[in-house]
Formats: sequence, structure tokens, C-alpha cells
Amino acid sequence: MEVTLKKEVHDPQGSAVENSLKSLGYEAVQRVRVGKYLEVELEAPDQNEAARLVEDMSRRLLSNPVIEDYSYTLEEVRRQ
Amino acid sequence: MEVTLKKEVHDPQGSAVENSLKSLGYEAVQRVRVGKYLEVELEAPDQNEAARLVEDMSRRLLSNPVIEDYSYTLEEVRRQ
Repeated sequence: MEVTLKKEVHDPQGSAVENSLKSLGYEAVQRVRVGKYLEVELEAPDQNEAARLVEDMSRRLLSNPVIEDYSYTLEEVRRQ
Repeated sequence: MEVTLKKEVHDPQGSAVENSLKSLGYEAVQRVRVGKYLEVELEAPDQNEAARLVEDMSRRLLSNPVIEDYSYTLEEVRRQ
């Protein structure tokens, strides 16, 4: 799951990384935005239920919907 | 670009999120790992050069190769 600041929200951490990269000689860099990456392993009977859980957690706890967007992909991991 | 802690490295931030989710009723959650997500916009003449730049920055600056792994995908954005 990726949680990123909405486009219109200022990202000081991204700007800091951007300036560091530029000052270290990476002039090709135009813009950097920093977000969070989360891997959540969960048990669910099917993909629909997994998606429901992930969206619920993302909206309620793992992102701030006022300033952040989230996206995710599901991957099946078989139980040992 | 995603920067994640290597599997064998303890992730206290991930454990904290995992415990919070569980205590909030998401018993389906088995394990959470937290990493960084970066969007880097850069100018490059082709995909090969873009990949070379991204790998160079990732290895040298954006990740700590001792404890972290990185992965990335490239996406072409046309110049306006």
C-alpha cells in the first residue's frame, strides 16, 4: 500500500530530498515526492474481503484522507 | 521507488502499526512492514539512462544497502 500526499499539499520532505539530490549532482531530477509504503499481511477468505479490509484500514487509520491519497495492490500468499 | 527494510531486520514501526491495527479490531492482520515510497521525476533521453540514474541514486543516497532493499518502476511522462 502506498500513502502519498495529495498533489496540492506541500511536501517538505520531498523538497529536501530533491534539493539534496540536485546538490549532489543529479541535475536531471525535476521533482521528488515522499510517501509511505506499507506491506500488510492479512488472512481473508477471498480477494473481495481482503480489499474491503485494506480500504477500511487505509481510510480510517493508515492515511489522513484530508491531505493524503492511498493506493494498493493485493497479492495472494498461500498459507503454509 | 520503494525502500524497504531487509526481511531479517527488525521493523519497530511496522510492529507498532501491526499492534495498533490488531488492538482496533483488525484481527485478520498477521504482519505489517513499513517502508518509504518515493516518486522521482527526472529528465532522461531514454529508459536505460533513467534506470541507470534511479539505481545510482537509490544505492548511493536513497537507501541504506546494509539494512534496506529497494525496487522501482519507470513510467514515461511526456514533456509539455
